[in-house]
Amino acid sequence: MSSWRLVEDDPAPEAGPTSGAGPTSEATGPLGGRTERPRTGARRMLVVAATVLLTLIGAGGLAVAGTGMFAEKPEGCSKPDRSIQLYAVELPKDGTQIRLGYGLTPQTASYPGPLMEMMEGECLAITLHNQVSAETLAALRTDPAHPLGVSLHVHGVKYTQQSDGTVQSGSYVPPGESRTYTWYAQPRNNRTGAQGTAGYWWYHDHVVGGPHGTQGLSSGLFGGVVVRRPGDPKPDRTYTVVFGDRQSINLRRGAATDTCTEVNPQPGPSCLVARKGERVEFVVVGIGNDMHTFHLHGHSWADTRTGVISNNGQPFVDSIPIIDNKTLGPGDSFGVQVVAGDSVGPGHWMLHCHMQFHSDAGMSTMLHVLDENGNMPPGMDHQHGASTAGTAGTAGAASAPAAGGGQHQHN
Amino acid sequence: MSSWRLVEDDPAPEAGPTSGAGPTSEATGPLGGRTERPRTGARRMLVVAATVLLTLIGAGGLAVAGTGMFAEKPEGCSKPDRSIQLYAVELPKDGTQIRLGYGLTPQTASYPGPLMEMMEGECLAITLHNQVSAETLAALRTDPAHPLGVSLHVHGVKYTQQSDGTVQSGSYVPPGESRTYTWYAQPRNNRTGAQGTAGYWWYHDHVVGGPHGTQGLSSGLFGGVVVRRPGDPKPDRTYTVVFGDRQSINLRRGAATDTCTEVNPQPGPSCLVARKGERVEFVVVGIGNDMHTFHLHGHSWADTRTGVISNNGQPFVDSIPIIDNKTLGPGDSFGVQVVAGDSVGPGHWMLHCHMQFHSDAGMSTMLHVLDENGNMPPGMDHQHGASTAGTAGTAGAASAPAAGGGQHQHN
Amino acid sequence: MSSWRLVEDDPAPEAGPTSGAGPTSEATGPLGGRTERPRTGARRMLVVAATVLLTLIGAGGLAVAGTGMFAEKPEGCSKPDRSIQLYAVELPKDGTQIRLGYGLTPQTASYPGPLMEMMEGECLAITLHNQVSAETLAALRTDPAHPLGVSLHVHGVKYTQQSDGTVQSGSYVPPGESRTYTWYAQPRNNRTGAQGTAGYWWYHDHVVGGPHGTQGLSSGLFGGVVVRRPGDPKPDRTYTVVFGDRQSINLRRGAATDTCTEVNPQPGPSCLVARKGERVEFVVVGIGNDMHTFHLHGHSWADTRTGVISNNGQPFVDSIPIIDNKTLGPGDSFGVQVVAGDSVGPGHWMLHCHMQFHSDAGMSTMLHVLDENGNMPPGMDHQHGASTAGTAGTAGAASAPAAGGGQHQHN
Repeated sequence: MSSWRLVEDDPAPEAGPTSGAGPTSEATGPLGGRTERPRTGARRMLVVAATVLLTLIGAGGLAVAGTGMFAEKPEGCSKPDRSIQLYAVELPKDGTQIRLGYGLTPQTASYPGPLMEMMEGECLAITLHNQVSAETLAALRTDPAHPLGVSLHVHGVKYTQQSDGTVQSGSYVPPGESRTYTWYAQPRNNRTGAQGTAGYWWYHDHVVGGPHGTQGLSSGLFGGVVVRRPGDPKPDRTYTVVFGDRQSINLRRGAATDTCTEVNPQPGPSCLVARKGERVEFVVVGIGNDMHTFHLHGHSWADTRTGVISNNGQPFVDSIPIIDNKTLGPGDSFGVQVVAGDSVGPGHWMLHCHMQFHSDAGMSTMLHVLDENGNMPPGMDHQHGASTAGTAGTAGAASAPAAGGGQHQHN
Repeated sequence: MSSWRLVEDDPAPEAGPTSGAGPTSEATGPLGGRTERPRTGARRMLVVAATVLLTLIGAGGLAVAGTGMFAEKPEGCSKPDRSIQLYAVELPKDGTQIRLGYGLTPQTASYPGPLMEMMEGECLAITLHNQVSAETLAALRTDPAHPLGVSLHVHGVKYTQQSDGTVQSGSYVPPGESRTYTWYAQPRNNRTGAQGTAGYWWYHDHVVGGPHGTQGLSSGLFGGVVVRRPGDPKPDRTYTVVFGDRQSINLRRGAATDTCTEVNPQPGPSCLVARKGERVEFVVVGIGNDMHTFHLHGHSWADTRTGVISNNGQPFVDSIPIIDNKTLGPGDSFGVQVVAGDSVGPGHWMLHCHMQFHSDAGMSTMLHVLDENGNMPPGMDHQHGASTAGTAGTAGAASAPAAGGGQHQHN
Repeated sequence: MSSWRLVEDDPAPEAGPTSGAGPTSEATGPLGGRTERPRTGARRMLVVAATVLLTLIGAGGLAVAGTGMFAEKPEGCSKPDRSIQLYAVELPKDGTQIRLGYGLTPQTASYPGPLMEMMEGECLAITLHNQVSAETLAALRTDPAHPLGVSLHVHGVKYTQQSDGTVQSGSYVPPGESRTYTWYAQPRNNRTGAQGTAGYWWYHDHVVGGPHGTQGLSSGLFGGVVVRRPGDPKPDRTYTVVFGDRQSINLRRGAATDTCTEVNPQPGPSCLVARKGERVEFVVVGIGNDMHTFHLHGHSWADTRTGVISNNGQPFVDSIPIIDNKTLGPGDSFGVQVVAGDSVGPGHWMLHCHMQFHSDAGMSTMLHVLDENGNMPPGMDHQHGASTAGTAGTAGAASAPAAGGGQHQHN
């Protein structure tokens, strides 16, 4: 009898080179069905042979696998509505840490990668170009039998085995090659019972370094996904914040989690800024090995699909919790929507993990809420560095005031 | 004054052998009531005496305790609707690790134990027969004063102190003895405000090794419970998946989390299989000391009581999150319902903890979705072992292909 | 160009003493607005100078900062409806562990501090008097540049930067000084979309020991907050239970988590008691570095804003999970409401963290449910100590029975 998988401690008769013929073509199929597929002559190889084989596969053999009998596109998606080119590239090292990123162009790759926004009902084709060298990918694996490649695995939306982004489905991209992944934002359907895919999701590599892409994730191969439903509130600004282990928000450590400059700050992954009254959306994602909590000072949100309680002229639902702190584990993703400065006004509002040793180690940044004209009132703004610096050393450095702005006159 | 509990650092006058008489029968009761119970002559014993006493109790004394003044059955359950025999037995050791299991017969004991399904309103009597030897139970405790026994503690449904399954209530079973536990799936009641007990729960030992049953749990004494409400969606298949520390899903390590065979796979705790279109239900439970996340590829579910948004002809509720990854801590339990292969088709869909070091260590299995006829398309199925093997050694072994089925021709 | 914060690895031209003039007053403001504030002459100081400066600030300079340009009160709160005096004081040490507490009077300070109850729409002014000595606060910091003080940071309700309780906003209280914080329980507003602040929240120090108040929290400076909405269910009793790391519920270790006496037990932070039929409310809060789960035997609740499904004559919402175990991370807070003893009767119902190593270490207490007359039936009550004692040593001591009450006759 052939097994779907070889188990390490398989009894000798099955794992050995003389294990003989596979099941006949007449065998009763699983769950009472019948196996139509001819399996005559199936046999297993010795471990030593398999290892050699895998090395060959690692050089590119698996990539062509994605042309098998599993469907290429999810049901409901006969033709993609939109096509995107996505590049996986190596970024400058962070010390000795290899950094990879996804980008809509090789030049704009970053971590997190570009936000993917979809509407329910939309079908998206993403062609991933793997520009990460085999040498770099080899440096990130410990098992020489593990194949070299980069993939795109996505949460929440629909995709077939061809777009799973895993090793066992062969749906990854060897160095220098490309592969098209198809995502379908399946809509709700009262008739079929399909519950829809609107939500806050994320995408990531599932192959670099091992079968779960652990090294791809910790190197930077991840990004946010938002699927909206007609009628959903539209944010003025969206920020993706990712909590990983031994690292700060968005993988930036300590003080560098907040790189806003005082004058003309440019919103970006490490500069969260909004005007009072703007609707700000956070796509919050957990990666790695640790638990985290997302906490924002002065603002709260509804623990719902959209992060708000939409009323649409109807009374609010009364049972939904309003929260300002939410636990997330690796793989979790959720959305938060707040009206910047509502009731609380402009200011430097801390956004941090409430695990104390995480925030103390620098997992803390700021949402800088400007006034309606885009200015920061001259309150304590020159001071705020001290609270996010995280370490004694930077705390000292961060407190150097700018003269003239605030109410302190230190000289 | 007599205390409800002796505290280690009790002042000498209370803890000593000469602490004297207890409260009089006329003492004012707690919360303003009056203590009717005569307590004259109550006195405390020396620690040394208590230890001797506990040893005696451990030999069976406490088991008869369940005939006290606390009610035997929860209100609303005058007579059990159904009776079940349940056996706690010792299973073959897993290396040096003692394994215990619950079973409807001694021969069918397993971990997780049998799924207990109830309807709201139902009252269930479960007689637990402890067939685990005193020697084994003694080996699992570090404190010789801790009593020997096995119990049945359940989440969610109603029970009195007599069925709590704890040491302090005396509701456990010494070796060789039996005890009947009564569970009541209290229904919703708009009049009384009772909110109902429909949900996904679990049962476990609360006594083996210590007052929280930590050794009973880690040995395998746990199982899933589902309480349904009339009108709830009915699954075609139910799988119980339990996440514990230092162990993989369902306590099976590494590759052994998926023991499906390719031909005629038998659904079971370590072989998750369904046909496309079947409604699959997971009872997800966390045990032990660690956090985990439940993640399923290609499928998502509603974060509700049933794991679905039931419409019953009405529009879906719009605020409920649809998720494909959910964090669970020890003691948590929830239900997931998906339509196998909906939109995404057949395939080997990974089910794993998204904590990377857990999945890399083997906390990963597969939901094998067959086509409507019960067959697996001949895509990459011979390959999928590599992704769940977890370690370098097994990755090599798992890749040995079956000739003929897929598009790879390795020889 | 002046930065909002100095980053440790700023390039030399910006961080050096000769970095020159700041932006002109005509610089384009962030997000397209214009910076009105004159910044001419802004310059940065050497790290060595900044450290000296911070030491001076630590001596009291920052406390006057709260009179800057950020609003003093949140919008919607023109005048406080109520004023409270709150004292931060040092409590007796717990071994060598410094303990601090908040109290409505210095004499009644405790951890958790007093429960703050508000109605949506209410505006509350709390004047915090810091009676903790500079010497004690200095002993709790490792960075001599970190300022000395105590603060009041609150979750959920609205406050401006002046009431943020953080170092960078200058909103804390040096030793011997006072400061008034303004909290606004912003109500729902269908017109503006404000979602309301009704919920279960908490307050805590954000300054002691470091910029996230980690030492303030672990010393005891925290308490619960409940904001109610008209029509919310009114509990008969409210208990605040706080889960922290290396500590048991409410920071009390092992056996001391339950200090109820058998006769006339006084409800309090470590004596949870209720009569059958009473509505008991728990304000559950997570602090520190660890994950926990809140589990209560024999009782369950709705995972909603209030912990109940309110029907108000209408059918219950069917999709809401009923749970008896809920994971919480640091910073999380939620409410639980149960009807004591409903269906299950009186008894000693365990309340514990279900992380086994936490409960085994003593993170476990009891909800003692008396009968309707305020008495405990004479069942196994003399025995219950064994299950919460947590260690071998106390297990022996705790089992000493009181003669006469129960059904055991041990002599």
